[in-house]
Amino acid sequence: MVALIARVLAAHQLNIIAMREFVDEAAARFFARIECSGVLADDEQLRQELLAQLPGDTTVTVNPPQPKRIAVLATREYHCLGDILVSHFFRTLDAEVACVISNHDDLRAFTEGFSRPFHHVPHEDRSREQFEAALLEKLSDYSPDYIILAKFMRILSPEFIARYPQRILNIHHSFLPAFAGARPYRQAFERGVKLIGATAHFVTHELDEGPIITQQTIAVNHTFTAARMVEAGREVEKNVLNKAMRLVFRDQVFISGNKTIVFE
Amino acid sequence: MVALIARVLAAHQLNIIAMREFVDEAAARFFARIECSGVLADDEQLRQELLAQLPGDTTVTVNPPQPKRIAVLATREYHCLGDILVSHFFRTLDAEVACVISNHDDLRAFTEGFSRPFHHVPHEDRSREQFEAALLEKLSDYSPDYIILAKFMRILSPEFIARYPQRILNIHHSFLPAFAGARPYRQAFERGVKLIGATAHFVTHELDEGPIITQQTIAVNHTFTAARMVEAGREVEKNVLNKAMRLVFRDQVFISGNKTIVFE
Amino acid sequence: MVALIARVLAAHQLNIIAMREFVDEAAARFFARIECSGVLADDEQLRQELLAQLPGDTTVTVNPPQPKRIAVLATREYHCLGDILVSHFFRTLDAEVACVISNHDDLRAFTEGFSRPFHHVPHEDRSREQFEAALLEKLSDYSPDYIILAKFMRILSPEFIARYPQRILNIHHSFLPAFAGARPYRQAFERGVKLIGATAHFVTHELDEGPIITQQTIAVNHTFTAARMVEAGREVEKNVLNKAMRLVFRDQVFISGNKTIVFE
Amino acid sequence: MVALIARVLAAHQLNIIAMREFVDEAAARFFARIECSGVLADDEQLRQELLAQLPGDTTVTVNPPQPKRIAVLATREYHCLGDILVSHFFRTLDAEVACVISNHDDLRAFTEGFSRPFHHVPHEDRSREQFEAALLEKLSDYSPDYIILAKFMRILSPEFIARYPQRILNIHHSFLPAFAGARPYRQAFERGVKLIGATAHFVTHELDEGPIITQQTIAVNHTFTAARMVEAGREVEKNVLNKAMRLVFRDQVFISGNKTIVFE
Repeated sequence: MVALIARVLAAHQLNIIAMREFVDEAAARFFARIECSGVLADDEQLRQELLAQLPGDTTVTVNPPQPKRIAVLATREYHCLGDILVSHFFRTLDAEVACVISNHDDLRAFTEGFSRPFHHVPHEDRSREQFEAALLEKLSDYSPDYIILAKFMRILSPEFIARYPQRILNIHHSFLPAFAGARPYRQAFERGVKLIGATAHFVTHELDEGPIITQQTIAVNHTFTAARMVEAGREVEKNVLNKAMRLVFRDQVFISGNKTIVFE
Repeated sequence: MVALIARVLAAHQLNIIAMREFVDEAAARFFARIECSGVLADDEQLRQELLAQLPGDTTVTVNPPQPKRIAVLATREYHCLGDILVSHFFRTLDAEVACVISNHDDLRAFTEGFSRPFHHVPHEDRSREQFEAALLEKLSDYSPDYIILAKFMRILSPEFIARYPQRILNIHHSFLPAFAGARPYRQAFERGVKLIGATAHFVTHELDEGPIITQQTIAVNHTFTAARMVEAGREVEKNVLNKAMRLVFRDQVFISGNKTIVFE
Repeated sequence: MVALIARVLAAHQLNIIAMREFVDEAAARFFARIECSGVLADDEQLRQELLAQLPGDTTVTVNPPQPKRIAVLATREYHCLGDILVSHFFRTLDAEVACVISNHDDLRAFTEGFSRPFHHVPHEDRSREQFEAALLEKLSDYSPDYIILAKFMRILSPEFIARYPQRILNIHHSFLPAFAGARPYRQAFERGVKLIGATAHFVTHELDEGPIITQQTIAVNHTFTAARMVEAGREVEKNVLNKAMRLVFRDQVFISGNKTIVFE
Repeated sequence: MVALIARVLAAHQLNIIAMREFVDEAAARFFARIECSGVLADDEQLRQELLAQLPGDTTVTVNPPQPKRIAVLATREYHCLGDILVSHFFRTLDAEVACVISNHDDLRAFTEGFSRPFHHVPHEDRSREQFEAALLEKLSDYSPDYIILAKFMRILSPEFIARYPQRILNIHHSFLPAFAGARPYRQAFERGVKLIGATAHFVTHELDEGPIITQQTIAVNHTFTAARMVEAGREVEKNVLNKAMRLVFRDQVFISGNKTIVFE
């Protein structure tokens, strides 16, 4: 199979500079990521030629190295959004921040200070359907490749998620599956854990159950109040979301059922 | 209060060499650990004098620096037991291993190679009551200060646990509360987590719910089978149990409700 | 001694809410940090009363809980400065950013976007004496409590440092003492290490030799180029500087010779 | 190239089950590790056939999945040796412990308790040449694939090392290149670092300068004496050596100049 692919790439004057593969035995699927150098005239033609050579149920994606377009959804917490906007400002994000949308207006001045469009889409006095319809309308104006939930505190419906399958990233402020659901630091405090963490994952229709991209924990101790856990957790959340975005935006993450394959 | 305590200690010719205190606001309790140098004639008298000076609901423990006696309960896995027996052999455990008890006979030769008594207390063809009665009888022969569950794979009844309150330590092979219950590495594999871990905790009547002493995680990735997680997890389990034992045996751990206060 | 202090504090209607102490045996010095609640009329009077009660060579500092004033020195790298300015904007820094000074003009727009004064003090075509004189003049306009070297790439003279003793914090992009000096990631790449890190320390007259406040490492592997180490290192640098600043600004860090005592 | 290799393997009825490759650009070398299933009649013939197909300066190693034979050199510290012997006893080491050699007799009873040959080769009253000649003679009796320096406290000469090129593993008790040389924990204590660590590396003729296989650090603080660092460091040393051995014994580590490529 590798030989077949290599031949097609060579015909397009592309040189393989890195290759990673993985056999997911439980899922009975083979995954390969091939990084090439060269000038590609026609993505779609290459994709078709590869599909023609490969077995029937193969999926082929051809990703030229152009920055993804992202829409960032936030609520009131600033730290993940801040990290994204600063990286974007200095061109180290590997993505273009198309817009920031929030169900509160608090982050407007901050976002606009970075010359990024900010939209306040309130959830109050609206049904979830109406709220999500308003969100989807805004999003459609920007055609994002990915939606980043940067501490967005509203639960999205399966219908909403189905509009952006495998394209919504969330940062959850616990080391899932511990403390899924609301107020994880409060739960962590009540349970008396000695480490707290964060999890970046793709969003699927089941809350906090999507494929995990990356996770990290840090130590806490008995002197940590829930508030100090929140404070310490901010750093982990930023790091974990930052790492997950970088992996996804560089096309290093594949999804296999409810798991990710991450070619680091 | 500190001044009151200091006066009593001074009367016993004891010098305070380290002091730690903590106010558990949620539990409305004050905790203090005082380390002294000097020669103490009578532990119980000191305790009574301190109690006489302190408010009515105070608990005072006087721990001379002598090694704790422990009984180790295991099943078939060797790594935590091995770590304990090797440390014990070289006198770095801060405890005296009184005996090893297992519901299987597999670890007999290994244990006896370290000149430690090994008792096989089978659980087969017995009710839990009968099994636990046999365990308790063996344990009572050794009067252990602590019981260490070093990968002991039987669930103990509340009645059993009540016989050794706050004196049974367990190592659970996940970062609790994630993956409580059986086969945590299998659960971790199924969920596709990116880190695995271990938790040392005191055993209470609710399974995997007792006060956590210490926890640690390590990174895994998509190439880890459940079996490789088990292998990688062994190292973490050993480290976590080792650290927890050291803290407990040196009287650095206090229990406040369902949490621990660890004066490291 | 504790009793003496407690009496003085009580006379000022101050309640001790937390106390930490440490005996540095090598330096033969005793350190204590006492946190009080209450309203303090006169800091200096309290300090004098405490000094009057305590042995002759005691140092007493009374720090009311007001934010420190800081001046941030940077060169061209944005990530540490960005983290500081974002935290400052959202009032979670525990400090007031009085100004940003750089030997390049690159970070002006970014800094001014946060409504903070930015001063370009070039080092080119100047002797070090002239450069540092210009820096000191700017700094004196702002009377900072602390100077934060947020990836400031000029070496400061002992004379400069002596003007702000124990008040200059630096982030060094390696786990000191490994890779002191220039281009640590390049050195790390050449040596083939499997972890990289960052160190926050006070600046003394010996380069990269001052008291260490906090350090952190992350894993790397053979696929990391020096450039990717730089990228991964940014996250660690931000975290480490952030943590060090928080500790220092909350008066949790004491200096004992060339070491720090950190009451976390 | 991959296609060429695949063809040769297929002719031997071997199926590729995993493949990893890496281009070391600085060294201008390509590395590949191919894991196959199947029954191999003749290792050397396969090697020759592969060499015949590949460019002139290629190195090919064919490693059937049989345990390596190792000789363990220790001095007086027990913890790394203990970890090795326990794993060996329970058949989870991926290696056969051929013998244990020490320049002291302290570890004899412990080693012999595991039914492993123990040899005391004293260094006292001997020149280094004589000492090393005695060591080499003992080693040659056992033909080890690898020599594991499990806290062996004598410096080996370049001549000695040249006898086992790329086949001597050492655990150094610091995060190299920090604290190379003698008494690293003492050095760490004096410097006031906030983390300590350990490094597993191949031994080359320059002390503590060989290719690093893996490293790990843990946090310490101002309360750690040098002795407590030693104690805490033991856990890290065991973990790091254990991980390095596992990687090496499973043929996952390649050496490129002074670096390792680790296909985890």
